[in-house]
Amino acid sequence: MNAYPQSVIKLISEFGKMPGIGQKTAERLACYILKQTTEEAMQLACAIRDVKKLVKTCSTCFNVSENDPCHICSDLSRDRSTICVVEQLADFLTIEKTGKYRGLYHVLQGHISPLEGIHPESLTIEKLLHRVNAGHIKEVLLATNLNMEGDATALYIHKHLSPSGVRVTRLARGLPTGSYLEYANTAIVADAINGRNEMAEV
Amino acid sequence: MNAYPQSVIKLISEFGKMPGIGQKTAERLACYILKQTTEEAMQLACAIRDVKKLVKTCSTCFNVSENDPCHICSDLSRDRSTICVVEQLADFLTIEKTGKYRGLYHVLQGHISPLEGIHPESLTIEKLLHRVNAGHIKEVLLATNLNMEGDATALYIHKHLSPSGVRVTRLARGLPTGSYLEYANTAIVADAINGRNEMAEV
Repeated sequence: MNAYPQSVIKLISEFGKMPGIGQKTAERLACYILKQTTEEAMQLACAIRDVKKLVKTCSTCFNVSENDPCHICSDLSRDRSTICVVEQLADFLTIEKTGKYRGLYHVLQGHISPLEGIHPESLTIEKLLHRVNAGHIKEVLLATNLNMEGDATALYIHKHLSPSGVRVTRLARGLPTGSYLEYANTAIVADAINGRNEMAEV
Repeated sequence: MNAYPQSVIKLISEFGKMPGIGQKTAERLACYILKQTTEEAMQLACAIRDVKKLVKTCSTCFNVSENDPCHICSDLSRDRSTICVVEQLADFLTIEKTGKYRGLYHVLQGHISPLEGIHPESLTIEKLLHRVNAGHIKEVLLATNLNMEGDATALYIHKHLSPSGVRVTRLARGLPTGSYLEYANTAIVADAINGRNEMAEV
């Protein structure tokens, strides 16, 4: 590693801290920065600075935005009676990209995981309950991940929302479109059987 | 994509310009930056700035360095009679990591590829010939890639170095350690046969 100048080693180490970026990729990215003109490379540096300067967390839904309330919370054309609950920012985008959902969001900023020391109080669940209890909400769609932590988090929220009488829904569990039964995991097929639907009339 | 604030979209697009970083990864990296504290994120931004401010190209070997001549060219403990010729920076590091080479380097900054409009004059070949003709060089190890462009570049340099009488060598071509003949490409096996060596005495 000491084949590189100090500042390059530092850059490689910073790239290497990012998720999914190993040593090799970090080196390739640093080489890319070295090859760029100063102006081009500074566009990335400035983009990072601008994001940290401009982007805040929405105090209502905990989404990121340059304004508070965020562009979703302040968009009057959206369905203000539905809240989609996601674990994190990236999940919000995944939902938003489908174009199938036009309601509001609530970003939990994680999932319940006692093993990792993440308890309900470390998340924004309390704020969600306040939002729902403040009224006007008819449905809460729990879009946490379909794994143990996501399920536990959904269960916890469901339990605490029950008294409010609001409709609580969960993302459908089944086989992904395009999949072959032959290669599917038993647990996934079992879920698909449990959740079977009536065929739509032709 | 307009689910994200403007500054985040800009950051995703900047990350997306980097090699091997697709849209999905760029989004994940941007989410990582959003999650970081401002201080942590600025370390990456500053590392990029510092590299562009501090790192220059060595005027002798065209390696990158914070000094000119670079740390390799000015290292008197290295073998100053051998030059290893590589296409690019990343290749220099690959060689350096093996610890098997203790001579000097020459970074071509590319390879000859008439189809891409890269002619010998666009590379640092002229400078390499000057270095060799200035004397004291006994061996030039051509470590360009083992593909068509790398071979063509090596051939071109070899032709132009012949009059100088310097020893010109090329990286060995053969089967990679750990490989199985059964799965090896015919051309690679042919190379390994052509380049066969005497077994070392036990």
